[in-house]
Amino acid sequence: MTLFMDIHEKVEGLTAEAVANAHQADLQVQGAYGVNYQQYWFDEKSGKVFCLVEAPDAKAAAQVHREAHGLVADQLIPVHAGS
Amino acid sequence: MTLFMDIHEKVEGLTAEAVANAHQADLQVQGAYGVNYQQYWFDEKSGKVFCLVEAPDAKAAAQVHREAHGLVADQLIPVHAGS
Repeated sequence: MTLFMDIHEKVEGLTAEAVANAHQADLQVQGAYGVNYQQYWFDEKSGKVFCLVEAPDAKAAAQVHREAHGLVADQLIPVHAGS
Repeated sequence: MTLFMDIHEKVEGLTAEAVANAHQADLQVQGAYGVNYQQYWFDEKSGKVFCLVEAPDAKAAAQVHREAHGLVADQLIPVHAGS
C-alpha cells in the first residue's frame, strides 16, 4: 500500500457540502479497490481540494474518484507521512 | 486562526531526516508566532513537501519556516478540513 496526496487544482463551483458528498461517495466505492481515502482539505474560494489516500497504486486511487463522482485529481503524489 | 496547506514544490536533496529536522526546527520557533505546524507529508523522489499548519495568518506561517530553516513554501493555501 502506498500513501498519496492528491491535488484537485480547481473544482468549479466547489462547496463544503459538495466536497463532503463527493468524499462520502469515495467511501462507498473504495472498498472494492482496496483504497482508503483518509482525510481531505478544501478551499471553496480557489476550488482546490487535497485528498490523503492510501491505495495499492495510483491507478486504484484514481479509479475510485472516477467511479464515485468523476472528479479525478490533477496530481497524485506518493508521500510518506512525517512523524 | 486559519488552517493552511503549504506546498514546497521541489526541495533539493530532500531526505526523510532533513525534513524531520526542519519540522523540529519549526516546532521550536512557532510558539513565538502563535503558529502550529500540525502534520507534514513528503516525497523524496520529487522533493515535494506538504505541511498542514494552523496560524493567525499566512505571513506568520511563512515567518516560522523562514526563521527555522529558510525553506519557505511555494504555495500557502487556506483550507478547511473535511469531516
